[in-house]
Amino acid sequence: MSELKNDLILKALRGETVSRPPVWMMRQAGRYLPDYIKLREKYDFFTRVQTPEIACEITLQPVDQVGVDAAILFSDILVIPQAMGMTVLLEENKGPLLPNVVKNKADIDALNTGDVEDRLGYVMKALGLIKNELNGRVPLIGFAGAPWTLLCYMVEGKGSKSFDKAKQFCFTQPELAHSLLQKITDITILYLKAQVNAGADLVQVFDSWSGMLSPADFKIFAQPYLLQISDAVSKHAPVILFPKGSWYALPELSKSSASGLGIDWSLTPAMAREMTNNSITLQGNYDPTKLLQPISTIKKEVKEMIDAFGVNRYIANLGHGILPNVPVDHARAFVDAVKEYGN
Amino acid sequence: MSELKNDLILKALRGETVSRPPVWMMRQAGRYLPDYIKLREKYDFFTRVQTPEIACEITLQPVDQVGVDAAILFSDILVIPQAMGMTVLLEENKGPLLPNVVKNKADIDALNTGDVEDRLGYVMKALGLIKNELNGRVPLIGFAGAPWTLLCYMVEGKGSKSFDKAKQFCFTQPELAHSLLQKITDITILYLKAQVNAGADLVQVFDSWSGMLSPADFKIFAQPYLLQISDAVSKHAPVILFPKGSWYALPELSKSSASGLGIDWSLTPAMAREMTNNSITLQGNYDPTKLLQPISTIKKEVKEMIDAFGVNRYIANLGHGILPNVPVDHARAFVDAVKEYGN
Repeated sequence: MSELKNDLILKALRGETVSRPPVWMMRQAGRYLPDYIKLREKYDFFTRVQTPEIACEITLQPVDQVGVDAAILFSDILVIPQAMGMTVLLEENKGPLLPNVVKNKADIDALNTGDVEDRLGYVMKALGLIKNELNGRVPLIGFAGAPWTLLCYMVEGKGSKSFDKAKQFCFTQPELAHSLLQKITDITILYLKAQVNAGADLVQVFDSWSGMLSPADFKIFAQPYLLQISDAVSKHAPVILFPKGSWYALPELSKSSASGLGIDWSLTPAMAREMTNNSITLQGNYDPTKLLQPISTIKKEVKEMIDAFGVNRYIANLGHGILPNVPVDHARAFVDAVKEYGN
Repeated sequence: MSELKNDLILKALRGETVSRPPVWMMRQAGRYLPDYIKLREKYDFFTRVQTPEIACEITLQPVDQVGVDAAILFSDILVIPQAMGMTVLLEENKGPLLPNVVKNKADIDALNTGDVEDRLGYVMKALGLIKNELNGRVPLIGFAGAPWTLLCYMVEGKGSKSFDKAKQFCFTQPELAHSLLQKITDITILYLKAQVNAGADLVQVFDSWSGMLSPADFKIFAQPYLLQISDAVSKHAPVILFPKGSWYALPELSKSSASGLGIDWSLTPAMAREMTNNSITLQGNYDPTKLLQPISTIKKEVKEMIDAFGVNRYIANLGHGILPNVPVDHARAFVDAVKEYGN
């Protein structure tokens, strides 16, 4: 493997001094890029995800075209429910659909937790290709969905504003919920370790729906599984946890084995630094809708954001995925503003 | 008007000592009650809202059948966009649809802000009927949507997970956004004052989508308008503000003219008391999904919730609307648990 020419994100995660923060954007490989849209017209979603050459090409697009400081594997968090044996349908411009939801113990018992390197072999092949194509230009981020968020989809069967069915399942059948969460955790640990073996330099765990839980329920249904994953995987590569909406968990998670915490825009940089006692690398938290503003406003706000977070122990990013209607030059302005910081 | 036999909620809002907290539930008049469902089968949504006799009957159902300490007018926050001249469609079990969204200055100029007592005369008639039927049993709550939340629907045209279009409108055309927010504020103040004149003993302002905004943007697009409403209406009746998801705003709002603040379950009672310096009445914050648990668990958790909030300056409630699939005896158990507190 080639030595990394740009290891800013790894330095930031180790808490080392940097000249400027690293920058990438959640969902940077995807729907706002014209070259991605061309591929979308030719291949359906899971063809793009499961064909290593296509996943590799999509992963590299924002590195080449937008200039981010890290590549993130093009994939989806629902490949894990799929690898566990569930049917996952993804229609373009619609949310995911899992027609056979988990309802009872038999459904959980039937879920597969092994063979991950075989069932998700296409991911490992994609990572190898990407690593080779990157040739050390920037680090490569692997990822997985957090157990709570995957349970949401596996029980609810689709996206939801409040995931009431998933929560009902947890609150009324907590033992079943925990056995499901543990199964997801077990396979996710295997999956992320395999990603690191295949070339991922760091990994991020997306708990996109943890904010649906109260602080008490987060500690029951989300946190223990996030920590299991972090403890197991951080021995092999730095781990970023992104419990979206769960600002209340930052104090405890800042003491975990994770190297970084993602935050959304529901709290200010100052609040996040205070809650984490300035002891861990933070990533975020620009409101993606703000990329629709004029470029001059974006540049001004990015500078203010870095001023507020500080240059060190910080990874500039959005607070959630980039929107499909963001012009490419606005995405580039976001990245450029970080690169120009301090000049 | 008859003297109130149960004025617990007014006492709680004035900060007076009470023997137990008052209790009501957001969306208590509605979809989980079999008698409501019977009316839904006979009359469409806006017939139920706009026919004072039907709105009165629905408003009284939870007082008679569940035993809450306050009635809340059966209506909808979208009657204001409707009164401003917009078309609002509400299909059963679907979200609202506003086919002609606000896009530009001409659309805003065309919106009506006067004649509210005429255009929403059916609400005032319903309040009079309800007040008469209540005969002083419990206080009557009036309500309106907050300007930011109404802007969300008026610009986006329907419900959304993130209201990106509404936010894009605000971030890219802030002057237009402020002129729209001011128009909504003006009519809302007239509307809430008219509700008080017609019999409402207190009012609640629902900012259901304020949590989509960062702390900085909340102060720009939500807070000034909430405060205008609170300042104007609190001269006539106590005001409860419910900025759902905007926990970060609690410190400042606790110093406002509002008598109470609603909170959701994303923060603990202790966090909310600390953020508000224990200086204002708090309302909430039971996770509605938890009403699907066994009755014994509900009763135990309600007791713990009151222990945590304290008996005074507290209104027991859910952190969001009751779910359609909650059994009536579970809703009753929630109310009973509050009434039995300390026995």
